Amino acid sequence: MFIIVVYDICDNRVVRILKICRKYLNWVQNSVFEGEITKANFVKLKAELEKNMKKEEDSVIIYGLRTTLYSFRETIGKEKGGEEIII
Amino acid sequence: MFIIVVYDICDNRVVRILKICRKYLNWVQNSVFEGEITKANFVKLKAELEKNMKKEEDSVIIYGLRTTLYSFRETIGKEKGGEEIII
Repeated sequence: MFIIVVYDICDNRVVRILKICRKYLNWVQNSVFEGEITKANFVKLKAELEKNMKKEEDSVIIYGLRTTLYSFRETIGKEKGGEEIII
Repeated sequence: MFIIVVYDICDNRVVRILKICRKYLNWVQNSVFEGEITKANFVKLKAELEKNMKKEEDSVIIYGLRTTLYSFRETIGKEKGGEEIII
């Protein structure tokens, strides 16, 4: 599946969250990661995020696409991410 | 269609972009909007964004879902947005 992760994390934890996301996904913009991920890695990613966040202060939203057939992606302005984008 | 807009805009333009997005979509997190939008409004939104950005400095990514049937949305931690979320 393809997922998009957006996060709003307090400064003292944001680098840890960035490093976790980078293990599984592509950085595309500040606080935004995307990419294909297996179910097993998706479970691992969420567990690591939960372990390194303060739920009452931090926010992570995950959008998941079981197929990218019915979705599209458009960029206006600078394409910040580097890696090859799938949808 | 349902869209997710994430943006990375220079400070002197970000309020304008926020106000534009708020006309069409729901704020859910810093620099992240989502919501259902008609094709006509989608065209208008993009035109307004382009008019108010500096393409060589700013970045907007739009993820579009023609149907939300094959997608899901999960939140970890604080749900920042207020409005009713659709998918």
